[in-house]
Amino acid sequence: MNAVQIAAIVRRALEEDLGSGDLTSAACIGPENACRAVAVARENLVGSGEGIVREVLRQVDETVRVQVLVADGVFVEKGTVLWSLEGRTRSILAAERTALNLVQRMTGIATTTRRYVDARAPGSLLRITDTRKTMPGLRALDRWAVRCGGGFNHRDNLGSGVLIKDNHVAACGGVGPAVRACRIHAPHTVRVECEIDGLHQIHEAIEAGAEVLLLDNMTDEQIVEAIRLADHRVFIEVSGGITLERVHALSLLSVDAVSVGALTHSVRACDIGLDFTDARV
Amino acid sequence: MNAVQIAAIVRRALEEDLGSGDLTSAACIGPENACRAVAVARENLVGSGEGIVREVLRQVDETVRVQVLVADGVFVEKGTVLWSLEGRTRSILAAERTALNLVQRMTGIATTTRRYVDARAPGSLLRITDTRKTMPGLRALDRWAVRCGGGFNHRDNLGSGVLIKDNHVAACGGVGPAVRACRIHAPHTVRVECEIDGLHQIHEAIEAGAEVLLLDNMTDEQIVEAIRLADHRVFIEVSGGITLERVHALSLLSVDAVSVGALTHSVRACDIGLDFTDARV
Amino acid sequence: MNAVQIAAIVRRALEEDLGSGDLTSAACIGPENACRAVAVARENLVGSGEGIVREVLRQVDETVRVQVLVADGVFVEKGTVLWSLEGRTRSILAAERTALNLVQRMTGIATTTRRYVDARAPGSLLRITDTRKTMPGLRALDRWAVRCGGGFNHRDNLGSGVLIKDNHVAACGGVGPAVRACRIHAPHTVRVECEIDGLHQIHEAIEAGAEVLLLDNMTDEQIVEAIRLADHRVFIEVSGGITLERVHALSLLSVDAVSVGALTHSVRACDIGLDFTDARV
Amino acid sequence: MNAVQIAAIVRRALEEDLGSGDLTSAACIGPENACRAVAVARENLVGSGEGIVREVLRQVDETVRVQVLVADGVFVEKGTVLWSLEGRTRSILAAERTALNLVQRMTGIATTTRRYVDARAPGSLLRITDTRKTMPGLRALDRWAVRCGGGFNHRDNLGSGVLIKDNHVAACGGVGPAVRACRIHAPHTVRVECEIDGLHQIHEAIEAGAEVLLLDNMTDEQIVEAIRLADHRVFIEVSGGITLERVHALSLLSVDAVSVGALTHSVRACDIGLDFTDARV
Amino acid sequence: MNAVQIAAIVRRALEEDLGSGDLTSAACIGPENACRAVAVARENLVGSGEGIVREVLRQVDETVRVQVLVADGVFVEKGTVLWSLEGRTRSILAAERTALNLVQRMTGIATTTRRYVDARAPGSLLRITDTRKTMPGLRALDRWAVRCGGGFNHRDNLGSGVLIKDNHVAACGGVGPAVRACRIHAPHTVRVECEIDGLHQIHEAIEAGAEVLLLDNMTDEQIVEAIRLADHRVFIEVSGGITLERVHALSLLSVDAVSVGALTHSVRACDIGLDFTDARV
Amino acid sequence: MNAVQIAAIVRRALEEDLGSGDLTSAACIGPENACRAVAVARENLVGSGEGIVREVLRQVDETVRVQVLVADGVFVEKGTVLWSLEGRTRSILAAERTALNLVQRMTGIATTTRRYVDARAPGSLLRITDTRKTMPGLRALDRWAVRCGGGFNHRDNLGSGVLIKDNHVAACGGVGPAVRACRIHAPHTVRVECEIDGLHQIHEAIEAGAEVLLLDNMTDEQIVEAIRLADHRVFIEVSGGITLERVHALSLLSVDAVSVGALTHSVRACDIGLDFTDARV
Repeated sequence: MNAVQIAAIVRRALEEDLGSGDLTSAACIGPENACRAVAVARENLVGSGEGIVREVLRQVDETVRVQVLVADGVFVEKGTVLWSLEGRTRSILAAERTALNLVQRMTGIATTTRRYVDARAPGSLLRITDTRKTMPGLRALDRWAVRCGGGFNHRDNLGSGVLIKDNHVAACGGVGPAVRACRIHAPHTVRVECEIDGLHQIHEAIEAGAEVLLLDNMTDEQIVEAIRLADHRVFIEVSGGITLERVHALSLLSVDAVSVGALTHSVRACDIGLDFTDARV
Repeated sequence: MNAVQIAAIVRRALEEDLGSGDLTSAACIGPENACRAVAVARENLVGSGEGIVREVLRQVDETVRVQVLVADGVFVEKGTVLWSLEGRTRSILAAERTALNLVQRMTGIATTTRRYVDARAPGSLLRITDTRKTMPGLRALDRWAVRCGGGFNHRDNLGSGVLIKDNHVAACGGVGPAVRACRIHAPHTVRVECEIDGLHQIHEAIEAGAEVLLLDNMTDEQIVEAIRLADHRVFIEVSGGITLERVHALSLLSVDAVSVGALTHSVRACDIGLDFTDARV
Repeated sequence: MNAVQIAAIVRRALEEDLGSGDLTSAACIGPENACRAVAVARENLVGSGEGIVREVLRQVDETVRVQVLVADGVFVEKGTVLWSLEGRTRSILAAERTALNLVQRMTGIATTTRRYVDARAPGSLLRITDTRKTMPGLRALDRWAVRCGGGFNHRDNLGSGVLIKDNHVAACGGVGPAVRACRIHAPHTVRVECEIDGLHQIHEAIEAGAEVLLLDNMTDEQIVEAIRLADHRVFIEVSGGITLERVHALSLLSVDAVSVGALTHSVRACDIGLDFTDARV
Repeated sequence: MNAVQIAAIVRRALEEDLGSGDLTSAACIGPENACRAVAVARENLVGSGEGIVREVLRQVDETVRVQVLVADGVFVEKGTVLWSLEGRTRSILAAERTALNLVQRMTGIATTTRRYVDARAPGSLLRITDTRKTMPGLRALDRWAVRCGGGFNHRDNLGSGVLIKDNHVAACGGVGPAVRACRIHAPHTVRVECEIDGLHQIHEAIEAGAEVLLLDNMTDEQIVEAIRLADHRVFIEVSGGITLERVHALSLLSVDAVSVGALTHSVRACDIGLDFTDARV
Repeated sequence: MNAVQIAAIVRRALEEDLGSGDLTSAACIGPENACRAVAVARENLVGSGEGIVREVLRQVDETVRVQVLVADGVFVEKGTVLWSLEGRTRSILAAERTALNLVQRMTGIATTTRRYVDARAPGSLLRITDTRKTMPGLRALDRWAVRCGGGFNHRDNLGSGVLIKDNHVAACGGVGPAVRACRIHAPHTVRVECEIDGLHQIHEAIEAGAEVLLLDNMTDEQIVEAIRLADHRVFIEVSGGITLERVHALSLLSVDAVSVGALTHSVRACDIGLDFTDARV
Repeated sequence: MNAVQIAAIVRRALEEDLGSGDLTSAACIGPENACRAVAVARENLVGSGEGIVREVLRQVDETVRVQVLVADGVFVEKGTVLWSLEGRTRSILAAERTALNLVQRMTGIATTTRRYVDARAPGSLLRITDTRKTMPGLRALDRWAVRCGGGFNHRDNLGSGVLIKDNHVAACGGVGPAVRACRIHAPHTVRVECEIDGLHQIHEAIEAGAEVLLLDNMTDEQIVEAIRLADHRVFIEVSGGITLERVHALSLLSVDAVSVGALTHSVRACDIGLDFTDARV
């Protein structure tokens, strides 16, 4: 995550949630009323979104003091205080929902990712990666949260990686021509990845220069055979129907990565509450 | 949803996903290669996002023909074709992920909402409503999807409704003062809603002018008693720990609405696939 | 007014007025030349726009010291110093016109609103409210200025309130159906307001659930009769041809609010001058 | 006005007024309900804003047919139909307020400007010009409206013209040095204008290269003397306390322009109503 | 280049060049005056920017007819008509400078790139690539122009490729640790490229997993030795002091790519003139 | 250059170059690793862009200390340290390319401009000016750099100056009518400049009120004759085929300005390197 991106995401989120200003607080809380509040994990979770919390408060009111107690990537148990705020009550209430909406999603992603990471056999280096199935407008946050959980990122967008799918193969007339076309035209700084529909395509793809194979929706048996055919010449990514059990099984094979759309397309937000410890300070 | 909002959301989503342009398609698909593709529901779902699909394609390439076969709000079974596209393959592939990411979320929300709606006792008019726990940047879409599912919207943002919570009460010195302050200062076009922590607050809130009471995290017994005390003078909203079973129970009481954060904070995306029926047309 | 909104409004205003930079100051004032200047009310006025002044200077040059001497909402007499500036002359001159253009409008609105407020009979609680007839792009400022003047806001925009007008009634087939449709579909956090063209509609509107009636362009006699028919069951708003004299008369009736488009659609800017007290400091 | 500017202004105005969408119309008007409406001048006015009307409707709904009957700059009498609309009722209602807010201001400016223009003695070529006292964010529209009224524009912003005021003179150490500095540093495409506080400065300013003199807050006698001293070597602009009567008097002297801040800083909106001629078509 | 990016670049360019509108054309050309104009290459060049021309005219005035006669990537001789326009004279003049400024840069880049490409020995597949030394705000156009000239793109930005430079090596404590760190943390869809300062680093870099070596500022002798050491295991990129002669020499070695900052950091614009063939049509 | 413009340009440049974040630094440099770096002129140059450097670092990381050692407009020899940075290594590397891309262009423009300025005969006041042939999106920077080099700016955009070209003359029916139309309609704050194709037009243009003549593509003999005909009544600008030698010759005539498109349309970037003096501090 870079500062410029975060600033833009937070600005839009605040515009959306503040609208023309908080009617309730303006009516019943004085402008100088101050308080202390703590964000508490109401379930076990992996921290993610420290930078977001800081930026939300910075934009709403720079005078609110923010203290982050749980760094991104750290696992904590239910009841842990994640961060604390002290300052104008109006400002803290204005920031509350935007901060929580973003951080609850991010910790949700980080925590789920950690489960996949922990499902691997001991010592396994199998990568758990995200996909482009992220929430539009929030991809930078989704990807960061995956890294907080111990996962890795797949390509960021269509312009930063090559992934040949069945439609490309169909339009191009075969795996070989498609891989060769991509290897020729794409920047030499990216690898060429090719989705494999059948084992017969593996040889053709590798010969044409593919550096990553995506084995999509294959059985474990097919994957074993694909790995044998690939013979350590390429990076092997597996996707499709990935469960925690499946991760364990795959981590025992020579699979390099499994990509899991569900990490980001169907996120269960972690439960985090903002508790006001002192209504007036 | 209005046209100006949708255009902005889609523009940002495309900027994010296209990056500097689709490396893969540029390399292996000719600019004039055309195809047909259909979006198919891979599970039972409630349609939502027709306007999004149209706008994504409009921004990517106005010449792609879009035909929407399932209107927003309509329930369809697994296997149904939701919409079809015909035009340049490069354009359809560039639009695919952005359209699906948005629509899968929207249909996920609509479908879940419908489940809550259907859980009510027959004939019940209990409203299922969303909350402000939406995805930052996409609130307009989340709220539309809730309506597609048969649900209702809560206030859009802090500036379009009054909801007095415990922190406001604490800062203001009581339920009565807080309600009165809001009734005085807020626009006369909004109702004053007040969260109730204990039954003893109900009389005070109503006397002060509250028009909606939010019963948060109460037992069914407490709710029954609260309804009795309120005596049809105010709108009763219930929240906290709402399950499908709970909805059925509440629909048998004189509750007016239940608000469900999970409708939008933890969305399971519906499975929709884009199948290419003709790789070349 | 929230910080994010103000920052955006001021940024656009400065881009517009600075263009490619101040040719005159760049030519004849040294970059380190510093001065003191005071903004003086050249007529009696109600202060409004303190936040704007601060933000304009913050964006132009954070090193300029800004001291606001008259808080928003305070009435002052001609000759009063409203705020003082000290810092780089180039910066103060660059900020001058943008700050004055905005603040002169805002104080104009606040001062006019105060006149309407003061026109009420002693002890009257009649609300003076704005309308949506604000200056596009500046609605947040216009509404704030109305509040500075002692007025109240109407709905912020089409999405934050319901107001059924004659066209809706015509399209919907009657006052009753229109009110019921809105009461059903709109969020339960807003009231349903209905414009009344004739006294015969009052009963129908209230029966259908209207909570606010808008009596538009009615005579005092008609208003008295409408109030009698409404019998304290709804909030009564009056609009159309509202003069200061009319406000006094209406404040003696059981009218709850009068909305005055002229507060914001035809604003006389207050005369405020920026006087340079020390050309060099 | 150029197309890019107008599109941005209208987009922002619509975002502001539509918010999350028109609650009322969505509730009680069907999506395919169509109507005809005409905008009628409810007072004599000079047309202005045709391009705005077209752009508002284009952004809201391209299918609404717009017919403009009174071109910009044309004087019409009360009761004249300015433009007509036909299409979806929801779209016309969504566009109504934004279009009217902008056009009522623009016609207000154009009509007032026309009064100043018409106040000149027959045959006079005296220019009536605007100032930078325009509404932030809407300067392009304000300036166009002045031209519609027969007036002329002053410099657009600080970067497109030179105007030396008393503060510049003070900081620079005299009229002569200030004019010379500007003549040297400013682009050769702009004239150097210098405000004159006393008649003794006229010779110095002209000798230093001033091409326009601004006589601010001078009496008619002082102006006559200034004109005599300037002796047709420079363009003479007069400002300060300009009334319609004063314009007539000045138009009999050799004054080249009078600039009138009130044209744009204190605008009375013209009364224009949108009447629905057919609620269903 | 994708449509969303181009639209944003062109919009900003037009805002910048049109300012408050074309004073000259507005004064002396009637709104309906129409003309024909052709853009003529005043030197030999490689076409680039067809999409830009179309978008500029689309934004300025959709009714102007645009005919592009020379496709992107095609070499043409001095005197060739590149594109022709027919429509409102005001619109064509408003679009002229923005279109030419962009296209002259793009054709300049494409034409220079072509010279480098043509400098290779016959049959050579040596890639000529760009760098990140592009013009801020216009990178998408610069990179497209390089492709039009027959060149290839390097990584788009810091987020879409890995390039380890001496500073990374210093901070990380060696080539090996740096390469390994990047190979572990970066997405598996990108290659790891490592800049080599001395021949002794080659073995370490390759062993650690580098897939691309950047030989920066090496002599031909050093390059030959580096290639020998790399032994076809990695992609070899050369940079630093690349002239046309040097390209020829390098194309005879087993170098895979040379990256040339000068393609985009010091662009000589091609001379293209817009000639008006019919002042009135 | 004003602060608002610079902030927007830098923000866009950073978004473009950072993408989703620096993969390389994130992988192999610790977040708290700090360093010192200096920007060194690798050739003689004229400083330009101090404000840009500060803003880039401010947006990337406010904690990086920036010290600028060479002010804008100062000529320095090869090897001079221009500015120094100290702070987080990741931040400095993230800022490096954006800062250098902008500053290398600006110093390139400033240095070239200085060469033209120095080519004038001793004591000559001939102005060297830019044109509108600047880089879209960066005009403010290009124009500032010209001033750093000792040059002057031409009009900023189509809305801030009048320049009648042959197409305007053709559409308007002659030099006289075109000049008169512009003199009447354009703001009185701008001069009317008219391009002269033949000596016979000079008298007509001046009589009609032209204040600046643009002699485009004329021989020195024609220019001498034009100056004689103009007889010091107007400002004389020369353009077309301007070389350093030509500047010297023209500076001996009574030419007031020469405008040089090549100053900005074909910029050779100055060579500036960022050297890391301490990899860890």
